[in-house]
Order: sequence, then C-alpha cells, then structure tokens
Amino acid sequence: MRVGVLTGGGDCPGLNAVIRAVVRKGEQEYGWRFTGFRDGWRGVVEGDTEPLDVRAVRGILPRGGTVLGSSRTDPFAAPDGVRRIRENLAKHRIDALVAIGGRGTLGHAARLHAEHGLPVVGVPKTIDNDLSATDWTFGFDTAVGIATEAIDRLHTTADSHRRVLVVEVMGRHTGWIALHAGLAGGANVILVPEQRFDLDQVLAWVAARFRATYAPILVVAEGARPRSGGPEQGSVGEWLAAEIERRTGKEARTTVLGHVQRGGSPSAFDRWLATRFGLHAVDAVRDGAYGTMVALRGTEVVRVPLAAATARMKTVDPALYAEAGVFFG
Amino acid sequence: MRVGVLTGGGDCPGLNAVIRAVVRKGEQEYGWRFTGFRDGWRGVVEGDTEPLDVRAVRGILPRGGTVLGSSRTDPFAAPDGVRRIRENLAKHRIDALVAIGGRGTLGHAARLHAEHGLPVVGVPKTIDNDLSATDWTFGFDTAVGIATEAIDRLHTTADSHRRVLVVEVMGRHTGWIALHAGLAGGANVILVPEQRFDLDQVLAWVAARFRATYAPILVVAEGARPRSGGPEQGSVGEWLAAEIERRTGKEARTTVLGHVQRGGSPSAFDRWLATRFGLHAVDAVRDGAYGTMVALRGTEVVRVPLAAATARMKTVDPALYAEAGVFFG
Amino acid sequence: MRVGVLTGGGDCPGLNAVIRAVVRKGEQEYGWRFTGFRDGWRGVVEGDTEPLDVRAVRGILPRGGTVLGSSRTDPFAAPDGVRRIRENLAKHRIDALVAIGGRGTLGHAARLHAEHGLPVVGVPKTIDNDLSATDWTFGFDTAVGIATEAIDRLHTTADSHRRVLVVEVMGRHTGWIALHAGLAGGANVILVPEQRFDLDQVLAWVAARFRATYAPILVVAEGARPRSGGPEQGSVGEWLAAEIERRTGKEARTTVLGHVQRGGSPSAFDRWLATRFGLHAVDAVRDGAYGTMVALRGTEVVRVPLAAATARMKTVDPALYAEAGVFFG
Amino acid sequence: MRVGVLTGGGDCPGLNAVIRAVVRKGEQEYGWRFTGFRDGWRGVVEGDTEPLDVRAVRGILPRGGTVLGSSRTDPFAAPDGVRRIRENLAKHRIDALVAIGGRGTLGHAARLHAEHGLPVVGVPKTIDNDLSATDWTFGFDTAVGIATEAIDRLHTTADSHRRVLVVEVMGRHTGWIALHAGLAGGANVILVPEQRFDLDQVLAWVAARFRATYAPILVVAEGARPRSGGPEQGSVGEWLAAEIERRTGKEARTTVLGHVQRGGSPSAFDRWLATRFGLHAVDAVRDGAYGTMVALRGTEVVRVPLAAATARMKTVDPALYAEAGVFFG
Repeated sequence: MRVGVLTGGGDCPGLNAVIRAVVRKGEQEYGWRFTGFRDGWRGVVEGDTEPLDVRAVRGILPRGGTVLGSSRTDPFAAPDGVRRIRENLAKHRIDALVAIGGRGTLGHAARLHAEHGLPVVGVPKTIDNDLSATDWTFGFDTAVGIATEAIDRLHTTADSHRRVLVVEVMGRHTGWIALHAGLAGGANVILVPEQRFDLDQVLAWVAARFRATYAPILVVAEGARPRSGGPEQGSVGEWLAAEIERRTGKEARTTVLGHVQRGGSPSAFDRWLATRFGLHAVDAVRDGAYGTMVALRGTEVVRVPLAAATARMKTVDPALYAEAGVFFG
Repeated sequence: MRVGVLTGGGDCPGLNAVIRAVVRKGEQEYGWRFTGFRDGWRGVVEGDTEPLDVRAVRGILPRGGTVLGSSRTDPFAAPDGVRRIRENLAKHRIDALVAIGGRGTLGHAARLHAEHGLPVVGVPKTIDNDLSATDWTFGFDTAVGIATEAIDRLHTTADSHRRVLVVEVMGRHTGWIALHAGLAGGANVILVPEQRFDLDQVLAWVAARFRATYAPILVVAEGARPRSGGPEQGSVGEWLAAEIERRTGKEARTTVLGHVQRGGSPSAFDRWLATRFGLHAVDAVRDGAYGTMVALRGTEVVRVPLAAATARMKTVDPALYAEAGVFFG
Repeated sequence: MRVGVLTGGGDCPGLNAVIRAVVRKGEQEYGWRFTGFRDGWRGVVEGDTEPLDVRAVRGILPRGGTVLGSSRTDPFAAPDGVRRIRENLAKHRIDALVAIGGRGTLGHAARLHAEHGLPVVGVPKTIDNDLSATDWTFGFDTAVGIATEAIDRLHTTADSHRRVLVVEVMGRHTGWIALHAGLAGGANVILVPEQRFDLDQVLAWVAARFRATYAPILVVAEGARPRSGGPEQGSVGEWLAAEIERRTGKEARTTVLGHVQRGGSPSAFDRWLATRFGLHAVDAVRDGAYGTMVALRGTEVVRVPLAAATARMKTVDPALYAEAGVFFG
Repeated sequence: MRVGVLTGGGDCPGLNAVIRAVVRKGEQEYGWRFTGFRDGWRGVVEGDTEPLDVRAVRGILPRGGTVLGSSRTDPFAAPDGVRRIRENLAKHRIDALVAIGGRGTLGHAARLHAEHGLPVVGVPKTIDNDLSATDWTFGFDTAVGIATEAIDRLHTTADSHRRVLVVEVMGRHTGWIALHAGLAGGANVILVPEQRFDLDQVLAWVAARFRATYAPILVVAEGARPRSGGPEQGSVGEWLAAEIERRTGKEARTTVLGHVQRGGSPSAFDRWLATRFGLHAVDAVRDGAYGTMVALRGTEVVRVPLAAATARMKTVDPALYAEAGVFFG
C-alpha cells in the first residue's frame, strides 16, 4: 500500500508532528510506503513529489512549519485539475491520501471524495480553532501561548509607566486566540470580531483600570472592528491606540504580533494532539474510512465526515465572551 | 454572603488563577465578601485566615504556587476537627466554602458535606491528571510542557555524544506526565507505573535506537518499576541509567526534574482552565449546588458530585500506552 | 545613614534587581536605612516617597518594571526643582542618593552633583545599550533574547510559504538590538539607524535569499530609514513590507514587537549584571564616591564619572555592521 | 584554500553557530572550501570526514549540539596519531584547521602546533566558563539561563509548602554556573567546588530563611563538597537534601538538572558570541595566525596564544563568592 501526504493552507505548528506520526505508524506497523506531495493540492495537481519515509521524518517533531511546503491551491480552479490529480495518483500508484489542512484544503478533499471518489482521509489544522467538528485544533495552543507570553511581558512595562498597551493578535473572523490569550494574560479588555465594539465602552474600561492604579492591557483580534468608524486599512491595534491617545491624552503603544504566532516549535499539547491525529488518520486509512477526518472529542480522537470540517465556522459563543467580561476594566 | 476559600494538597500551577477568578467574579458580580483560610483544611480547623478581596488577588494570575499556602491536613484526623471547623465557619460568618484541591482535600470536602452538611463546592487540582471525573486538571499541561522542554534539550546532547539520557518525571501512581511528555518530546522509551517494565525490552529499544544512528532518550515516571529487581530506594531514573551502563557499556546520564515540574508560571492552557473553573465554582455557590465540584468535559465546564473526584484514580489506559509504542526504539 | 533610591526613564528589565541588591547589601552589611522616591526625579522634587527595606524587596528580583515607578521628569525644568530637591532630601534626612537611569536621568544626576553638590551615585540602565561608558547595560540582553525568539519563530513560517517577514525592533537612534538579534536569529537583512539603507540593495538581498530556496527575514530597527523616501509617520517595518510587496509581488508581513521587548522577567545575564551593579553602587556610596556611576568593563564592575554616561552615545560601529554583512542575502 | 573544521569535548550550545559562521565567511568572502572532520580529533586521526559548505550549514544556527559530532580522542594517545593526522591532512589537501573545543581539544591543538607545526586556529568552548584567556565562553550563558529558570520555578513551590529545595547544577571543578544561576535566581545558599562548605553554616542559612517566612532554595555545583563527610558517590544534591531532612525535620527535595543544561538551542548571547568567534577565526586563518585562539575581551574579539587556553583554569574568585554572600540565608 502506498499513501500520499499533503499539507495545505496557512502553516501551523504541529504539521510536522502529524506527518511524522503518519509515516512512523504506517511504515513500521503496516509496512506501507509514502509519497509526499509538495505545497498542498498544488503538488498533487502538478505531480510534484518528494520521498517520505521514517528517515525523512526524523527530528521534525519539534519543528514549526511543514517539511512538505504549503499552498492554497484550489484543484477545482486549476485547469484540468481533477483529471491531473487522477493521473498523478495513478502514476505514483497512490492508494490513499492523507490531507492535512484547514477549511480550504479539507473542503477540496471533501469534494474530491464526494464527487470523484478520491480515497482521502483528513486531518484538521488551524491556529484559529474555528472548526466546529473538533474540540481543539493543533496550533491554537501554541499561538495562545505566544500571545499570552507577550501580554505577561507588557504588564510590567504598562504598570511602570501608567501607559496603555494594545496587543493585536491573529483572528480575522474569530476571536478564539484573543479570548484565550486575553483570559490567560489577564487583559483588561478583549475585543473579538464576533461583536463590534463600542469605543466609549472601551474608554470606560481603560479609565476604570487607571483608577485602580494599574495600567490597562487591551487584546484585540485583527478582525475586531468598532460599531462605527475604524481603520480603513492597516492595523486595528494601531488605530485603537491612536484613538485612545487622542481621547484620553494617555500614552498608548501597540504590539502587532503577526506571524510570530504561527511559527516556531509547537507546544507540548499541540505535539500530543497532532501526533494522535496522525496515528488515528493511519487507522482510518487502514479501515478504508475515506471521506472522514479525525477530530478530538474530550480526550478521545474520533472520526467525523470530512464535510463537517467546512460545515460551520466555530465562532466565539456570546455567553463565553460575556463570562470573560468580569475581568474587563 | 461571605465565602471562604482554601487550597490543599501539593501545590500546582493555576491555584492562584482559580482564587483570583473566584474573588473577581464573586465580589464584582454578586457583591460577596471573601475570607482566605491558610494552608488548606489546617486553616479552617485552626481558624487561621487572611483577608481576600480584589486588591489581594491583583497580579497573582501568572504566579505559581498559592497565595493561601497549602497543607495535607486531614480535618477528621485533627482532634475535634469537625467541631472546630463548624465553630470557625460560624465565627467568621462563612456561608459557603470553595475548596481547591486533589483527591485528599476534596475527599475531606466530600465527607464534610455528606456527613456534616458543610456548604462546600470543589475545584479539582492535580498536576498528575489522575482524576477520572474531569477531562483535564490544571497544572498538568504546565508540568508536561516543562518535561517536554527538558527532553527537547537532551536530544541534541544525546546525538552529539551517542549517549543514553534518562529523564525522570513526576508520577508515583500514574504515568500521564511521562506519556504526554514522552510523546511530545519524541522519547524512544516511555515507562509508566501502570505497567511493570521488562529491562531486556528496554535494552532492546536502546540498541535499536543506536542502530538507527541516533541516541536514545528514555522518559521514566518516578513510580515506574521493572518486573523484577529495581531500586530499593532512591531514583528509578538513576537506577535505570546505571543498569544500562552496566549492561551495554554505553554512557548513560540522568536528569531528575523533581519539583521544577510543579513550580513556576502556569501555561496559558492551565490559566484558562483554572480561571474557568473559578468562575463556574462561583456559579455553583450562587446556585447552592453544594457537594459538587466543577469539571471539564470537552470544552464545557460542568458540575459533578464531589465524591466523583475520589471515586476512581484515572490511570493510563493500556490501549493509549500501546498506541505510543510505535515510537519506541 | 539613610539612602534614597530612584529609577527614571524608560523601564527596563533588571531595575528591580538593582533596587533589591542595593537594599539587601546596604541594610544587611552596613545597617543603612532606605527611602524609595517614586517615579524618578519627580518623587524627589515632590517628596513622594515609599518605604524601602529588605521586606519590601522580597521576590522582586525576577520581575520586570520597577517597584518604584518611573518618569522622565527633568528637575531643572520643574519650578524651583533644585530647591525642592534639597528640601526633600533634608526633610527625609537622606545622606546619599542612588539614581538608576539612562542618559536623561543620569544627566540630571551629573548636573545636580556638579553644580549643587548632590551626593549621588549612578547606575546605568538602557535596553538600547547605547552608553559608551560601560560594555553592556542590563535590559539589553533581555530585549535581544525576546527579539531573537521572535525571529526563530518566523523562520519556519517564512520557509513554509516562501514569504518575506519583517520584524521591527526597538532602537530609535542605535541599532544594537537589531544587530545582535539579527545575528543571533540568522536574519538575512539587518537595518540600523546608523546607516541609511538602499532599498534596491535590500531588494537584491531578498531576491538572493529566494534563489537559495529559503525565505527572507528582515530585522529593522524602528529608527532605520532609507536613503530617500521612507515612511512619513508610522512603522518603518510596515512601510518596508509594503514596498517589498509592491516591487517584488511577493507576500510580505510585519511583526512590530514594541514594548514586549522591554517588559517581563529579565534574563539571567541581566539579573546578574543588575545585581552586581547594585552591590557596587552600595560600595561607591560607602566610599563617598559621589558623582560616579558603576560600569562593566570585561567582567569587572568599575566606577566612572557620572558625566561619562551622557558624554557620547555608543552607536553601532560601521566595522561591526560590515562584519555582519556576510550573512545578508 | 581548503580548511578543516572539528569540534571536540563535551557538547555545548553554540558549536553549530561557530561552524556556520566559519563556513559562511570563508566560502562567501574568500572562496575557501571546507572539510568537516567527524567527532573531534578522532575524525582527523582516522580520516573520517564529511562535506561542509554553505548548504550544509543552513538552519543550524539555533540548534544545540554539533553537526560534526564530538569525542574526547587524544591524538597523542592514538597509535601513530600524529603521523596519521599529517597523512589525512595531506590526503584531503587541508591548508589549515579550525579546532573548536575546551581545554582538552585545544590543548592537543596547541601541542600539535608547537611540536609539529600544524596550521591550526582555536575557538574556545565550554559551558563551565573556566578558561582564563577569555572573558566568557559560549554555552555558559545558555546553561546559566536554564538553571535560573529552574530556580525561578522552584521558588513558588518552596514557598507554598515551606519545604527546602536543592538544585544540583553542572560544575565539577568550578562553580561559575552555580554562582551566576544562584545570583540570578535569588538562591539562599550557593555552594561551589572552590570552597568546601560547612554543613552547620548551611543549616544556619536554611534556618534563617525559614524565620523570614520564606522557604530556602540551595544551588549546589555537582563538584561541591562539605568540609568533612559528604557523598561517597552519587549526587551531592541528594546527599545534601537527605542531611537537611535528617537534621532539621523539614522536607527537602532535589532537582538534578544534568545534561539539560548543555542541550538545546543556544541563548541569543551565546549565538552572538559563537558567531563572532567563528568570523574572527576565519580572519586568523586568513592572516596565517596559527597557534592562536580567539577570545573575548570586553566587547572585542582578540587573539591569544593557543597555549593560554590550557594554562590556568579560571576558578571562582573568593572575593566574587563573598560578594554573593549578602544574599545567603
């Protein structure tokens, strides 16, 4: 049996841990052989492959990024994409595919399976934690940890100077990183894309914090926006700091963490989750459970339909956000 | 309403995060007042208290340990313990207690509630992750992270010198830390208390690893023991390294992480979990749900009977341990 | 003997370590008593003090910021500033002052000593490392470490997506943080304020890096500027990324680390240096060596005239910058 | 011109940074070619080589260990060692050697140069910081940082339980790691090999610390010994904890950090130092300055005779140790 592996979408700490677990288990336990496709669906469409065996995955567990490269290639948008995929799978005698990716990559996998019978098993990945079919996705814990460490550092400098500090974290459509890092870091204001914020309310929280003799830390997801106005382009964090300076006279400074959140060595939790996802993806292939993806439910790894990955974006529940409100101000 | 708070048992990163969340929510949302009892049940038995309000909990979120101190005092073993608890609760006009602890502390809480009607809500805590009533306990993720970082560091030195490195991690009765850190760190052998190990098998894994041109890292829980023989006292890690040296002639070195694993700043995950546990414990008190403790199920915080905390120790499932075996050798 | 202590200027990891060392040694070895002045020279001018003894400094060694607060108050600009300083020192019976600060704070100290005979000893502090009188200043190593860790993380994400990543680090006038973090992080381009950069050269380095099949990381000090053009306001890092995108068509992203670099727990090196500075400042007071400041020369702490702190800004030597050039591109 | 490179002795964070800097500068700036000798002098004696060029050193800067492997082979003890070295250098047409190592490896280099005219330049390396010819060696800062982080973590658990915690750090002959980490971590007792300790004095410090309501942290170098008695074999840290328990009745626990201190990614300081050492070693080869090694003096990299590396072990100065005494107890 020969199995192809690909990683697609934005890179994410833990991708290499999945690849390693898939290869270690498939090769050692079942004697399978593997082919790596480069840069997600692009590699399958174009037949761009690289050797993948136990030797090739040695030492990659703690490394960020993906040794297979990544892209956002849509095989249905590529000329003759589906036919070329079929040809390349035949040419490399691929019996099954393990596709590791987010909503885009797995959405293509779901359609290739449903419409064209492609024997594919999915592994969900996103630092944004916005997939409803799984309790957690790997990469998220690492991103939250990095953002939390940044907030920890800002507390001391905020206090020493009584200045306002704004941290802009990833999250265009969902506020999971902002919510978790904000809670873990003890932020005084957390702003998420799911709820437009009221600048006057934010200013009231800032003022309340100063009255308590401390300085405020605001965590804002890159996709958060005010009820009215807001930045036309550029960083919402820098816009917010400028507004606070203008309206309060207090010094305000911004940190834009950017891609630091998605790079580097995965946390222990993400390596554990990614490794278990890889092991269970191999089991799914062994069982011929094509069209499914692995998912975490509690502490168990289960299988759900691939389509579930793309069915609904998991946004921050208003009740959860309200729960955090006791720490605002 | 006045609520007492106590922390008992071994200290654990996240205890302060629970205390802070309880006080922030209770005081700000419900106007409650709080009393801290020092050193777990000892403080309740002896009436040793300290003030606890929003001001007192400022800045403690990222700090390890517990600002209230801890002990393993058994109120039923203390002379007149239960009577003195009643008197001290009356004296300080305590309407409800939040007890944060592990199997011991919560076991006493369960019995005080069941037999004496004490109005108590529990919050589970253990770095060992050995409570069956909750998916995870806070402190565990921090401990696993620290052990994983140590393993990461050992890989490079093991490889440069072709030597065997043994890491002894916490876990007298359960191997959760060893299993998770071993998986996350890419250990070549993981030994847990739940299964006595076969030294010849361990040596075979060590030999296999050397054949693959790498050097082996062994992660051993402090409570792991061989099928026969083993250390009469002292560190099992050092015993194992000595045995490996004696029988293979390879140099073997040991790291005993010890209490480093339970100290220091909690991980972002543990702060999030501890904070949510604290918020939900306040809700349980508000609802008069005495005799319950909070627990994590998937991503939800739920309530379970306090007795559940002590009903059954959650040990490492043989199937989970076997799953990790693909990485051995 | 009673000694006053103040911290001025931008906050910096290690300030608390100095304060602790001064108090520990002064109180325990010489039986002195201490008074803390709040917010740098502002506290001395306004007589704003707080108690400072061994108990007050317990546990502050690993904490960022300063327990005494900080400001940029210029006592010569304050109405009647010098007279009020004299009065407040007399009122609190202060025999000597330890002033911890950068070019501003120590410049005022030098003048107060030279023109008004104030018995003051200085301790140099700046994360920018721009003081010529000392080999290193505490805070710098911490800042470089944080920036380096960010660069480490960006490498994996840059490689996975073949994108350009720009990191803007602190340094308005000097490029020390950029140079050290860029070297330590393996940056492909380092831009410093001391030398205006040529955008075409930067683009050539970016192109060379892509040809080597890797993705480029650019480290840019906030004060670096191109030979012509450049941002009128806002972040030079974001300007640079936009220019690269515009001229190469490659995706480019920016991280603006901001105050994360000056907050949080000091590195072991900075704690060691700050502690030794504190111990030696006490010796200088004991010896009546007013008008001096402590400085590091090799591994020795020596005394230099306070005026030396402000005599010349230590900029990045062109030869040192050229030495790093072998890693560009 | 063809240059051989070797790394010998105990591995040390920063070795790869030196190798990379040597190859980058030699190849790009002077067009040299390089040959890597495996496992220190063993590779030169046995002619065991591997290719070494810019491609081979990509990505190794942040990695611990050494890509060339290491050993403690003494070429003068190997049969016909010197003759075989000559033959292998001729066979591979090596014009010069860069030897990276500690007292052993560089001692052999010095003798090979002095007695046999070998064209060799040295780069000093030791995590122990015990070379008198240079202000600092790379690897030391990383080791101190790791030990300091462990002490930081132990503070919270020590305080929560009023227990004694002992950390054993590296240092068989010198106490530099113990002294720096002890100072940086705020240890209450620091014990070094240079001065036999008085157990009664240690117990007095422990008692004093408990009276101050805190719990003591003791940092002990592996080579520290009491004035009388002491462990016949095994860990001095565990011996000390057992003695403290026996004589005070207080619970005492030990962490033995072991090789965790020499593994893993080098600190930013060590990468900077190692990189500069590598660049300057290339300059020394270019200048034909054989028989010298690079060294740090203040912030400058200078050349000193190779023999200086082994002339005198740099031990902890009693005055420096006494300076730290103000923090004991």
